[in-house]
Amino acid sequence: MVGFVMGELNRRIVTDGQVFPGDVLKVDSFLNHQIDPEIMHEITGKWLEYFKDREITKILTIEASGIAPAIIVASTLGVPMLFAKKATPSTLTNHDLYTTPVHSYTKNVTNEILVSKKYLSPDDKVLIVDDFLANGEAALGLADLVEQSGAEVVGIGICIEKSYQPGRQKLDDAGYEVYSVSRIQSLANGRVEFLSE
Amino acid sequence: MVGFVMGELNRRIVTDGQVFPGDVLKVDSFLNHQIDPEIMHEITGKWLEYFKDREITKILTIEASGIAPAIIVASTLGVPMLFAKKATPSTLTNHDLYTTPVHSYTKNVTNEILVSKKYLSPDDKVLIVDDFLANGEAALGLADLVEQSGAEVVGIGICIEKSYQPGRQKLDDAGYEVYSVSRIQSLANGRVEFLSE
Repeated sequence: MVGFVMGELNRRIVTDGQVFPGDVLKVDSFLNHQIDPEIMHEITGKWLEYFKDREITKILTIEASGIAPAIIVASTLGVPMLFAKKATPSTLTNHDLYTTPVHSYTKNVTNEILVSKKYLSPDDKVLIVDDFLANGEAALGLADLVEQSGAEVVGIGICIEKSYQPGRQKLDDAGYEVYSVSRIQSLANGRVEFLSE
Repeated sequence: MVGFVMGELNRRIVTDGQVFPGDVLKVDSFLNHQIDPEIMHEITGKWLEYFKDREITKILTIEASGIAPAIIVASTLGVPMLFAKKATPSTLTNHDLYTTPVHSYTKNVTNEILVSKKYLSPDDKVLIVDDFLANGEAALGLADLVEQSGAEVVGIGICIEKSYQPGRQKLDDAGYEVYSVSRIQSLANGRVEFLSE
């Protein structure tokens, strides 16, 4: 591709990612088990550039892999970050929580995720971030928690998007602005192909 | 207390922490649900000062609340961070993992935690970090994962230690060097008392 400069994250996916049968891209050497702070700064720098001037007051993510990029963004902007928790039965009777169901296609289960009502308010302008976007369930769930509070979702920052899965379209259709640092077009035949804009 | 200057974390615990019956200190407004990046930098700065010159090559923590301070330390030192995961049944037959049991006294269950063998090697000098130290089970479990790999635990950095619980003593007895930014002597009668050195 003439003139196409591959970003650092895409380069890292090519060199260190592993593609497994069943549409699995493993990036646990640098993104979601072992985490390389340099690539995190690369990713968060791109989100910050894309979503600058949005007067962000809070960063929202979901445990566990979203926490690392979320705290870096929060730290740079000087705003709090909040991570949604996966519900345990003991938490669900608590009326101080916003909850919403999130279906995991990988595990084929639906679980509630939650945040404390104390930490989202109608004046908040929330940037949602996460490591992966595929079916969009987690991002839509996080957006729903924000909407329940009356706060505004100012954007959704994603590390790696599987663009051939329905998540991106669902978020676009719901009117959210999404910026994914890496957009993957295909993992067919064990090979990573990126979407070129 | 003449001459006793309260650190920023202790001050924050006094102003924003909540003590509940059953020895519960809730700090979810700034430490383990909503996270204040400023207090994170305060904490990680103290760990970095205390453990400087240890030639740290890797930061190890456990999901989820340890991830935020861990990535900040990793980022400052320019080394990778690794977070241990709580096991799901599907992961336990995998021979590429170091696993160890961790008992939760709060939930009264024992779960396996795990890291991929790929990300700890005998030359690693590992700083373990976590948000709370009480019974010491999580920290001892993390240390065990490091020992299994042949790597060295160079120290254990903790945000808040309940010094009246047995964890600190267990880690001291096992020969680990522990530095806790906040050391709580008592939560009796709903009041936080700190250990003064």
